[in-house]
Amino acid sequence: MDRDRLKKIMEDVRDGLLPCEEACRIFQDLQTEDLGFAAIDHHRAVRLGFPEVIFGQGKTAQQIVGIATSLMSRQDVVLITRVDEEKAAAILKEIPELDYNSLAGTLLFTRGEMRNRGKGEILVVAAGSSDLSVAEEAKVTAVSMGNSVGTLYDVGVAGIHRLLTNNRRLRDAAVVIAVAGMEGALPSVIGGLVDRPVIAVPTSVGYGAAFGGITALLAMLNSCAPGIVVVNIDNGFGAAYAATLMNRIAE
Amino acid sequence: MDRDRLKKIMEDVRDGLLPCEEACRIFQDLQTEDLGFAAIDHHRAVRLGFPEVIFGQGKTAQQIVGIATSLMSRQDVVLITRVDEEKAAAILKEIPELDYNSLAGTLLFTRGEMRNRGKGEILVVAAGSSDLSVAEEAKVTAVSMGNSVGTLYDVGVAGIHRLLTNNRRLRDAAVVIAVAGMEGALPSVIGGLVDRPVIAVPTSVGYGAAFGGITALLAMLNSCAPGIVVVNIDNGFGAAYAATLMNRIAE
Amino acid sequence: MDRDRLKKIMEDVRDGLLPCEEACRIFQDLQTEDLGFAAIDHHRAVRLGFPEVIFGQGKTAQQIVGIATSLMSRQDVVLITRVDEEKAAAILKEIPELDYNSLAGTLLFTRGEMRNRGKGEILVVAAGSSDLSVAEEAKVTAVSMGNSVGTLYDVGVAGIHRLLTNNRRLRDAAVVIAVAGMEGALPSVIGGLVDRPVIAVPTSVGYGAAFGGITALLAMLNSCAPGIVVVNIDNGFGAAYAATLMNRIAE
Amino acid sequence: MDRDRLKKIMEDVRDGLLPCEEACRIFQDLQTEDLGFAAIDHHRAVRLGFPEVIFGQGKTAQQIVGIATSLMSRQDVVLITRVDEEKAAAILKEIPELDYNSLAGTLLFTRGEMRNRGKGEILVVAAGSSDLSVAEEAKVTAVSMGNSVGTLYDVGVAGIHRLLTNNRRLRDAAVVIAVAGMEGALPSVIGGLVDRPVIAVPTSVGYGAAFGGITALLAMLNSCAPGIVVVNIDNGFGAAYAATLMNRIAE
Amino acid sequence: MDRDRLKKIMEDVRDGLLPCEEACRIFQDLQTEDLGFAAIDHHRAVRLGFPEVIFGQGKTAQQIVGIATSLMSRQDVVLITRVDEEKAAAILKEIPELDYNSLAGTLLFTRGEMRNRGKGEILVVAAGSSDLSVAEEAKVTAVSMGNSVGTLYDVGVAGIHRLLTNNRRLRDAAVVIAVAGMEGALPSVIGGLVDRPVIAVPTSVGYGAAFGGITALLAMLNSCAPGIVVVNIDNGFGAAYAATLMNRIAE
Amino acid sequence: MDRDRLKKIMEDVRDGLLPCEEACRIFQDLQTEDLGFAAIDHHRAVRLGFPEVIFGQGKTAQQIVGIATSLMSRQDVVLITRVDEEKAAAILKEIPELDYNSLAGTLLFTRGEMRNRGKGEILVVAAGSSDLSVAEEAKVTAVSMGNSVGTLYDVGVAGIHRLLTNNRRLRDAAVVIAVAGMEGALPSVIGGLVDRPVIAVPTSVGYGAAFGGITALLAMLNSCAPGIVVVNIDNGFGAAYAATLMNRIAE
Amino acid sequence: MDRDRLKKIMEDVRDGLLPCEEACRIFQDLQTEDLGFAAIDHHRAVRLGFPEVIFGQGKTAQQIVGIATSLMSRQDVVLITRVDEEKAAAILKEIPELDYNSLAGTLLFTRGEMRNRGKGEILVVAAGSSDLSVAEEAKVTAVSMGNSVGTLYDVGVAGIHRLLTNNRRLRDAAVVIAVAGMEGALPSVIGGLVDRPVIAVPTSVGYGAAFGGITALLAMLNSCAPGIVVVNIDNGFGAAYAATLMNRIAE
Amino acid sequence: MDRDRLKKIMEDVRDGLLPCEEACRIFQDLQTEDLGFAAIDHHRAVRLGFPEVIFGQGKTAQQIVGIATSLMSRQDVVLITRVDEEKAAAILKEIPELDYNSLAGTLLFTRGEMRNRGKGEILVVAAGSSDLSVAEEAKVTAVSMGNSVGTLYDVGVAGIHRLLTNNRRLRDAAVVIAVAGMEGALPSVIGGLVDRPVIAVPTSVGYGAAFGGITALLAMLNSCAPGIVVVNIDNGFGAAYAATLMNRIAE
Repeated sequence: MDRDRLKKIMEDVRDGLLPCEEACRIFQDLQTEDLGFAAIDHHRAVRLGFPEVIFGQGKTAQQIVGIATSLMSRQDVVLITRVDEEKAAAILKEIPELDYNSLAGTLLFTRGEMRNRGKGEILVVAAGSSDLSVAEEAKVTAVSMGNSVGTLYDVGVAGIHRLLTNNRRLRDAAVVIAVAGMEGALPSVIGGLVDRPVIAVPTSVGYGAAFGGITALLAMLNSCAPGIVVVNIDNGFGAAYAATLMNRIAE
Repeated sequence: MDRDRLKKIMEDVRDGLLPCEEACRIFQDLQTEDLGFAAIDHHRAVRLGFPEVIFGQGKTAQQIVGIATSLMSRQDVVLITRVDEEKAAAILKEIPELDYNSLAGTLLFTRGEMRNRGKGEILVVAAGSSDLSVAEEAKVTAVSMGNSVGTLYDVGVAGIHRLLTNNRRLRDAAVVIAVAGMEGALPSVIGGLVDRPVIAVPTSVGYGAAFGGITALLAMLNSCAPGIVVVNIDNGFGAAYAATLMNRIAE
Repeated sequence: MDRDRLKKIMEDVRDGLLPCEEACRIFQDLQTEDLGFAAIDHHRAVRLGFPEVIFGQGKTAQQIVGIATSLMSRQDVVLITRVDEEKAAAILKEIPELDYNSLAGTLLFTRGEMRNRGKGEILVVAAGSSDLSVAEEAKVTAVSMGNSVGTLYDVGVAGIHRLLTNNRRLRDAAVVIAVAGMEGALPSVIGGLVDRPVIAVPTSVGYGAAFGGITALLAMLNSCAPGIVVVNIDNGFGAAYAATLMNRIAE
Repeated sequence: MDRDRLKKIMEDVRDGLLPCEEACRIFQDLQTEDLGFAAIDHHRAVRLGFPEVIFGQGKTAQQIVGIATSLMSRQDVVLITRVDEEKAAAILKEIPELDYNSLAGTLLFTRGEMRNRGKGEILVVAAGSSDLSVAEEAKVTAVSMGNSVGTLYDVGVAGIHRLLTNNRRLRDAAVVIAVAGMEGALPSVIGGLVDRPVIAVPTSVGYGAAFGGITALLAMLNSCAPGIVVVNIDNGFGAAYAATLMNRIAE
Repeated sequence: MDRDRLKKIMEDVRDGLLPCEEACRIFQDLQTEDLGFAAIDHHRAVRLGFPEVIFGQGKTAQQIVGIATSLMSRQDVVLITRVDEEKAAAILKEIPELDYNSLAGTLLFTRGEMRNRGKGEILVVAAGSSDLSVAEEAKVTAVSMGNSVGTLYDVGVAGIHRLLTNNRRLRDAAVVIAVAGMEGALPSVIGGLVDRPVIAVPTSVGYGAAFGGITALLAMLNSCAPGIVVVNIDNGFGAAYAATLMNRIAE
Repeated sequence: MDRDRLKKIMEDVRDGLLPCEEACRIFQDLQTEDLGFAAIDHHRAVRLGFPEVIFGQGKTAQQIVGIATSLMSRQDVVLITRVDEEKAAAILKEIPELDYNSLAGTLLFTRGEMRNRGKGEILVVAAGSSDLSVAEEAKVTAVSMGNSVGTLYDVGVAGIHRLLTNNRRLRDAAVVIAVAGMEGALPSVIGGLVDRPVIAVPTSVGYGAAFGGITALLAMLNSCAPGIVVVNIDNGFGAAYAATLMNRIAE
Repeated sequence: MDRDRLKKIMEDVRDGLLPCEEACRIFQDLQTEDLGFAAIDHHRAVRLGFPEVIFGQGKTAQQIVGIATSLMSRQDVVLITRVDEEKAAAILKEIPELDYNSLAGTLLFTRGEMRNRGKGEILVVAAGSSDLSVAEEAKVTAVSMGNSVGTLYDVGVAGIHRLLTNNRRLRDAAVVIAVAGMEGALPSVIGGLVDRPVIAVPTSVGYGAAFGGITALLAMLNSCAPGIVVVNIDNGFGAAYAATLMNRIAE
Repeated sequence: MDRDRLKKIMEDVRDGLLPCEEACRIFQDLQTEDLGFAAIDHHRAVRLGFPEVIFGQGKTAQQIVGIATSLMSRQDVVLITRVDEEKAAAILKEIPELDYNSLAGTLLFTRGEMRNRGKGEILVVAAGSSDLSVAEEAKVTAVSMGNSVGTLYDVGVAGIHRLLTNNRRLRDAAVVIAVAGMEGALPSVIGGLVDRPVIAVPTSVGYGAAFGGITALLAMLNSCAPGIVVVNIDNGFGAAYAATLMNRIAE
């Protein structure tokens, strides 16, 4: 039911052309779709002022350029994820104002100053150097969504002192994103040190019985530290998205 | 938004107390929930005139008696599934008019004549004697939903002639439900013989690498006969439900 | 037993050269194979007037050209599935009258008008843009088998209003094919909205714990909406084949 | 290094018996353990003022009575989880002041008024009636940790309107805990409706290819709604714990 | 087509009532089922003179007594498998002439002398004492099917000399059935020692990562000794059945 | 202990230089290895007069040429498996007398007439055209080991009549090798038709839930036809090896 | 070849009745088994002076009493594992001199003083209180095999300080056995702290995605601390056995 | 707390500027991180005098050259693993003093004589020729860590005599590393022959149901020879690392 039809009904009621009871029946008979869902027809992302995000994997450079150009004309922040170096080079030739993070595989467009809308710092912690790709994806995403973001890398549990010497930074974070592959133990140790939500991100780093991240995923789901929450393997983007939601509660 | 409030708005518009534009805005601001979803707030089951179904597993005899009694007061057909013999005995003591099928584990209540609303026969085919429990659940369910139902049992593929000698019955069915455990090959052979939809139901019959029906399930999903569709392990009820929907297309 | 031998026996009986009892014994001793299976030696596909289908994957362009040319000489409809762009270009150079759908990866040959032999519309619904390849395979297949086919794309459950606003189209379909990857929730929601068979097709879209479509497959098998039936991962062809069978019941 | 030894070193330095440089070396050589970890030797739970929790499964009624009695003497809130009816009866005979929730399987002791320390409401949403056990465990846990808690039950996605008509309650929550078994689609739909963190809890409800909750778990990890976070199967306790941490960010 | 109808056709042909050509057409139009499948309507088991076998698991003692009594009236050998001690006692009270092997869980009835119909000895080899139940099922089955059977137990590969000191017995066998749980290595070693077929039977013996026999099953399928063939977990019966078929080739 | 030392001991005993008792002790103290294992140090393959086999996968053309040349100098039959077309071309340039089967991926060298050493025909049966690669590997292997070999292809269970019309050929075989991918149902049907050993070979043909042959493997292990034995996925070689052993029992 | 036959040959050689060459041939023709394997026919356990071990699970109290009594007559140490309380009570009534450890489920018999044959202490470390059963099995086993054994319990990684404050004990051990369920992270942290072999033992503690210990097993196999070795789930016995072997290297 | 601050406190105490009690409080309040973890901030590898190791996989030749050059300036031994031939060639052009083992995929730099720091020989045993890559990685690693290393290759269990004839070498080893793919049975047989620790390394050799090494891994975890310990699939490096730790116990 579009605006015009709705207005017509009201005018008919007002003008006595349509009895009230019949008007009521019309509304009660309405199919869900007829209302146009005024209230819910906006993406959560749009409602939150989040950037438009393009999942770059599986798209050609040319396709990405097309979508990005269009989005940049009406958005202040545009994020493109999962873009390898070769594809990035091709895109940057056309849209040089994008900022490429080769570790994260992200291209980021920002117009003007980013507004920090979160309550505290989101701290991205990574176990090994091979987990950095996922950690950086989380970092760039969190930044693009208006958070203050810190990082703490190369603090795997086999060298526990490196993690412990950063105890204070961990505690000062509002939300911790803990990225780890292999045995995925990092979130458990962090969970015992901090009083904040810990989002665990398993990575596909490892070989043999690492099963492309399944081992880390299962370990994180079974953490002996209560309150750890988990996202999909290599899902740095999703972790940052969730961290942003948490960082804005009661905003 | 309940009926009264809706009527009040209309009357206010009619009486000039509420300008049309403002009335329009009220409707456009409406949350989905405010309409009471006149159109979609009925279960598919209710819309189709299907019986109310009670999933008996995990409920006590006393709980089932309570729910069944209530449903029987306003429904002509009530179906209770997954009821073992002991529980059935306890229920029958209180509601003797239920019809118990011990193989299927079902209790069925019907008031008056069942109306056959399908276009043809639903034929339930089972591979081995251990598959009969699931097959009978499918049969009773299909009957309770107003179909003409036939059965063809003990026609496993290792004795292929028993299946072939019933070639004609298979071909005359409107929909075939093929129930099999172990290697789950029955639907593939049937699929090559008939021109009708074949719904494959894997059963948890078997041991060792049968993995409680997973082997049969996977085999059915990979049938070399195109057009086989599959439901969950032991889900005789679901197969009959789907068969009924198929049997009523363009009813 | 070929025609000649059969005729000879009959003539011998007629001429009194072969006693009746002995002739009876000959027939009773017949091996299954001796009859040539006059009745069942035709594919279901042929019986139904379905097109010949070439599974393109794993075949060279040259092999496909050979088979297709042969089939086109005696069939009015020939469908080739799983053909990537490069292979398609090579084939089209030789058989330009084929119609290539690059999203579906299909090549379709039709001679004359397609006859619509189904009772209603088969509606292909897809959750995300990455599911379109499978959805289009289903669409082209259903068209090639003589159905009226509609599509409803990009209606994933995380933006539920897009699905709901198409409530009416869903309800008007004879059969719904619901294509989804990731968590595979689409068929469950559709199952609650329509009174028609819903064929769920899991796709291999996703990463990490999507496991190449296994997650979507399992979700669909466990749908809380009764009566959902499922086909193999990415099996758009099989879904359309099954939908066609359903759409012709009691034809 | 205990207090006395530490004091002795300081006194020796003061008294000139121990040169500064040597005292420095002593400290630098200290093993981690020598400090007694003044700062980190408290559980996160204790730091947060959370109740002591007893995991009742695998413990006898008598063991639980012993631990609970001890904890109740020094804590204002004691929570016991995973206690079946029979065990609960035995415990209640000894400690009648415990409050038993048979659906949740929890026993809760509270002394005085619970202080609400969260910023908003934690809303526990459950798909089916069989998911209530896990949902109630989450509810009781969240209450015991000082949150305002609401519930919204029986809103499975196959009857989507029941969920949509509660759209407003979902949006008003600070954190949503979405509990579902079978295909686990509930969190995806909720994720599209609200701007708050959604914690998905898969339950072991279902049969066949539900695999004791694995299907729901995988579906939730692959949600097409970004930002969904997941906990272990049936882990209502962990979800509530995480929700509480989120609900107190920047407290 | 039953005997009478067949005879009538022949007589009509003989009597000139039915032209030969028309009789031919009748036969060519025959559906598969019309012939009654004179040739293939006998079980392989019956053709081979194998005993009737009752799978005891899931049947009550009374059901088994009923079936066994009936079979014993027309068969010289009847084998009942998977019967635990309690059930066996109940059955033996009614049919004392059955021979119970408590390790194998089998009840065997034989009338008269068993005829040895195989070419050589079937040797059943078992790795550990916990594999004996499956090994004995294989032994009893092979005996009941008319083979000469030997056994070689407790020859696991961790004590390789026990196997090697029986090298000659292994070599003299016609077929070897190798039963093993845990890592399932026995068939590989035997395969290197003998020139005869080796049938590997994985058992569900073990714990943890033995996964109820899956580990042994996989190991056997991947044997580095070529020519090992495998049956289902715990399937002593199937191994003996296959061994018997091998032992009678060109009988 | 080499020949010389052994001879020396004997001579010393003969010459009275070594007392008998001491000689006995020497032998009893012998480590296993000291005997050189005169009896068992020959491969089963060598003992059986089987060809030397080169597993071509993972070897370069040049490596294969080297090994093959060496083997051909002392063996009458040399078999090379898993050789793709490109590699085969390179090898054939150097050793033109090899016979390449491109479907099987095999190169075979034979000098003089093959001697048929089996008792009957090994019949290789394949379900679909994509299974032919594995079936041909089995065929070539069986031929190279001195068997009479037949083939029966394209007899998948969805077109059951094609299998049944070859009923007699199946029955006349000494051993049947049944090759099938997808749902792997072929061996079950064959098992019900013949009285000979059936070796089931799952192939990696299929997609989605075919899981690279796992589905077919599991189906075959759970065959409802007793006595089916199974080899690893795509293991045509192993099936032929086992069939040859069976075909020579009591040779 | 028994002693007598061997002696006879030697005497014949000595007496000139058997030519040397012929005697040589006899030995060269000897089958492996003929030598009686003087050297290798002793179990590793026996060679090492380890106790006889009875795996109690699956044996009746009476069977255990029989075996234990027999072993105690000729061994100074007898260990019985996997004995629950009820069974232990029955056994202790007959053999009161056994020492029962209810946590470990072990019964231990020792005659005289245990001799410590290892080079250092085996330290058994356990993460949670539910892992104690497996840890104690390891402890009792290690003690029974003549090691000095220490324990360090309740040092899970979520409360990392408890582990760190025992840093010195960890470093002083010769071998560490690290027992953990759930996410199995304990061995990784220990591996970073000590310079000794760490044997990781996954336990079946946990629920949901703990999968009966599989998660912990996988995590341990993927430890980021190099040099961690792993045994089967719940295999405290095996870990202690391996630790003992390590503790005696170059003994 | 850095050295300067620590010194300042001591001087203040000495000078009477800081009362002892207050100084004590400062230390007791110290966060873990403030101490800089003098004692544990060295890698285990460094403590043990192990070489620096570069995991070559996933790094470019140029990256490796950079890291290696830096490490070689301060270490006497540098090991680079997982380097394929092409990458090795590029690296060797820049650092010709590296020693490349193409089978192992390792590059090794050593300055001066390697010091043998272990107590005995580490013996690397491999089942098949395809396992050599992993075995050689273990060998080179063990050599680089200062062990005496021996090898025993091509001793798979299907030709058991080859293993047995090397019985003595096996027994003389201090630690055995047993490398095997396919069914992974080698460690079990070795475990029965030697009194030393056996580290089992599964390899990804095999096809079909070998599942990239999972079958061998599971088999090794379930070895019937007690005391076998296991590392990750293809983890030759980790096995050698663990063997080195064992070989130095009580060094």
